[in-house]
Amino acid sequence: MASDDLIDEELRRDSPEEGGKPDDRVDDERHDEENRLKPEFVRRVVDALEDGDKSEVYDLVEPLHPADVADLFELVGREDRSALAEAVSDLLSSEVISELNDYVREDMIDALPAYAVAEIAEQLETDDAVQLIEDLDPRDQAAVLAEMEPEDRAAIESALSYPEETAGRLMQREFVAVPEHITVGDLIDFLRDEASDPDALPTDFFEIFVVDPAHRPVGTCQLSWILRTPRHIGLTDVMKRDQTLIPVTADQEEVALMFQKYGLISAAVVDEAGRLVGQMTVDDVVHIISEEAGEDALLLSGAGDGDINEPILLTVRARLSWLVINLGTAMLAASVVSYFQDAIAKFALLAVLMPIVSGMGGNAGTQTLAVTVRALATNQLTSANTWRAIGRELTIASANGMALAILIGGGTALVFDNPLLGAVIGTAMIINNLTAGMAGIAVPVTLERLRIDPAVSSAVFVTTATDVMGFFSFLGLAVLTGLA
Amino acid sequence: MASDDLIDEELRRDSPEEGGKPDDRVDDERHDEENRLKPEFVRRVVDALEDGDKSEVYDLVEPLHPADVADLFELVGREDRSALAEAVSDLLSSEVISELNDYVREDMIDALPAYAVAEIAEQLETDDAVQLIEDLDPRDQAAVLAEMEPEDRAAIESALSYPEETAGRLMQREFVAVPEHITVGDLIDFLRDEASDPDALPTDFFEIFVVDPAHRPVGTCQLSWILRTPRHIGLTDVMKRDQTLIPVTADQEEVALMFQKYGLISAAVVDEAGRLVGQMTVDDVVHIISEEAGEDALLLSGAGDGDINEPILLTVRARLSWLVINLGTAMLAASVVSYFQDAIAKFALLAVLMPIVSGMGGNAGTQTLAVTVRALATNQLTSANTWRAIGRELTIASANGMALAILIGGGTALVFDNPLLGAVIGTAMIINNLTAGMAGIAVPVTLERLRIDPAVSSAVFVTTATDVMGFFSFLGLAVLTGLA
Repeated sequence: MASDDLIDEELRRDSPEEGGKPDDRVDDERHDEENRLKPEFVRRVVDALEDGDKSEVYDLVEPLHPADVADLFELVGREDRSALAEAVSDLLSSEVISELNDYVREDMIDALPAYAVAEIAEQLETDDAVQLIEDLDPRDQAAVLAEMEPEDRAAIESALSYPEETAGRLMQREFVAVPEHITVGDLIDFLRDEASDPDALPTDFFEIFVVDPAHRPVGTCQLSWILRTPRHIGLTDVMKRDQTLIPVTADQEEVALMFQKYGLISAAVVDEAGRLVGQMTVDDVVHIISEEAGEDALLLSGAGDGDINEPILLTVRARLSWLVINLGTAMLAASVVSYFQDAIAKFALLAVLMPIVSGMGGNAGTQTLAVTVRALATNQLTSANTWRAIGRELTIASANGMALAILIGGGTALVFDNPLLGAVIGTAMIINNLTAGMAGIAVPVTLERLRIDPAVSSAVFVTTATDVMGFFSFLGLAVLTGLA
Repeated sequence: MASDDLIDEELRRDSPEEGGKPDDRVDDERHDEENRLKPEFVRRVVDALEDGDKSEVYDLVEPLHPADVADLFELVGREDRSALAEAVSDLLSSEVISELNDYVREDMIDALPAYAVAEIAEQLETDDAVQLIEDLDPRDQAAVLAEMEPEDRAAIESALSYPEETAGRLMQREFVAVPEHITVGDLIDFLRDEASDPDALPTDFFEIFVVDPAHRPVGTCQLSWILRTPRHIGLTDVMKRDQTLIPVTADQEEVALMFQKYGLISAAVVDEAGRLVGQMTVDDVVHIISEEAGEDALLLSGAGDGDINEPILLTVRARLSWLVINLGTAMLAASVVSYFQDAIAKFALLAVLMPIVSGMGGNAGTQTLAVTVRALATNQLTSANTWRAIGRELTIASANGMALAILIGGGTALVFDNPLLGAVIGTAMIINNLTAGMAGIAVPVTLERLRIDPAVSSAVFVTTATDVMGFFSFLGLAVLTGLA
């Protein structure tokens, strides 16, 4: 889409069906006060779908913003998605497709014939088209590609040749690049000329890349710098030479960190030879940032993808494999307890108190672990300050261990009128808090050095350490001191 | 800064000290392969600081990108920050300040006199200046504000009158707004004229807001649309009327969700009367998105802020208060065990196995909890699909409970040659997995309805439920079936 369509498109946007004032979006009959679709509205759509009343469905959905159409697909059940896609196929714009959850997009795409998918893909920018097609099974993918224009197909095939979650796969192949030694006026004239060819310019762009004859970036211009500079000034006098270039092989996590660190709106992607081959824009990176930052909580808990739209069998498999690993570690901890069965048979109060020691160690370890994983993910914890961070965690663990020891040790001594028992549980609490603090930072830092994602694997090791050490220190001290 | 400074600034950026080719940033003597500062480099700076060799420090820091200068402040110890700030005070540009961690910024600002802070604040855009000043204690804040130009002071005082983490506090007060019924040519001429006044235009802007005579937004133009449109076209023919407006009172989380949902680069902020009073840009929102998404893992674990630069006493207090609450729930669970002391004294194997049941329930509950909290935070789980999500979680809990029951029940029956014990632990495992699934979704959903942040408070309730139910179901069934 380029600017000869633009005016038409703007006029369409102005038309009353599009919703009029933006404030109408909030607190209307379709949205609640937090701008989410109301359940009653979703219910009406589902009822109309079940009645087979396609025109009612269409009338309901048509006034929605594309992002809300995408939300609607997520909110109706799986079983209703293909019927909904059929009823509103006209409204499935590129914005709807690019906003859809991956699994929901699959449900919807499966319901459409290859030529319809190809038609949608051709309207999209390459990055969104790739998202649409990459998860199809190879046969469907080939069928859709066969229906596409050769040029679009080539762009998508090129993207698919890069690994998932790399810049080469995620980048837009549409961007604006111009040679050095032209003036601001030349550039504006060029853009106005190109605007008459619908495919010549990307829908939106935020900077102009200046390239040398070998197509290597030499500088970049924010559009705002161009707009406020007189026509006769040379582009080389406006552009910034020092720019952040993204290698085509960069992982999405690296890309997200660069955008955050340097406050980028868009950035050039270069191939191995340093040639400009694409750009990444912040609106796509925002999704990556949110995903990467949010996945830590899910990975730490072993919930896998943690996507509520994931097919249930995949979810069961992901969570169960984690639970089975944890079952192994729980059995390891139980085997520590089994060494002390005689002591427990003599003095059953030990069995009452021992989960407190192991559980509190687990809680303290999880705290340190969550902090460490986040600090590693945001590059705040690097090899330059690892020792300082370890010292910090051990100090915190000592302070907390001592405080908890006084509380639980004092309480136990008083309630059971047994000062020795109080001393034993207090000491065990300190030992286990130090274990928690040490494991909570050493495990993720070590895994990171070994290039294993610390969010995925740390928790098993940390809770094993705190469970084993919790039982061992408490029961062991009880036996040593002759309590049982 | 506006464009008469612009060319000078670009020339400075071109100078060799600024790093030449951007690729030099990576794999040089200062950076490791992931673009983080090398520990050896940080060490050299600290050594020079300790030797009191300020000019060596300056020479080392001067070639760094502002974002790296900010990182350096975070990587040196607290004790070195004020000396570093003194040595490189020339290099403390607005970009450095805005990239600094909050606590590190405080350490640094504390070392500078009020006039120096005021001088830095005046170079900044309002939003960054507010960040610099908002955390100072009231007396220092007043001293800094007194040193500032009246106009800048008024802007900051106005921002401080809004609550923390709202759009009014976070927005930039610099933006470009023009009346309707001008042409693209008029707009470009206006921008070129304004560019000669350094304070007239924001440093960067990504859209032009079109306003009515009462200063209410009526439309918006992306800069790329303006650049490709002929001069004689009216702005109303290029602009988009349907735009996302942010109320000045909106919470930062809401703002972040809007930017993600609608793929915004910038957006207008309006006051209660609907007048344009500021803008928010995506580079600031990116930090909010990353923070909001990343904090769930920290909040779920009770690690508070989870910032490794937080003063250690604050960290101890935050974590300890969570641990003490958990100590209470652990004691509650222990009191369940204490009812079964006689059974345990008779059959100590129960004490060996019981932590497996409670622990596995805790793991399963944490999985469901992490998924639910994330789905709530991203508006994927709303009142429109709550029942479907609950059904989904209970299905998963049944499947996983069954699978784990077979593993642990079968294993126990075989190893201890006691089929009844196997049946008891298997049944308890199923009961506790269902408890975990139910609590893992019902607790956060209920808290969200009560407008309590589910990430902060859910974990206590969920682990209490799984601990209590784990011990009760296993030990209770053991007694009921006459095992002990």
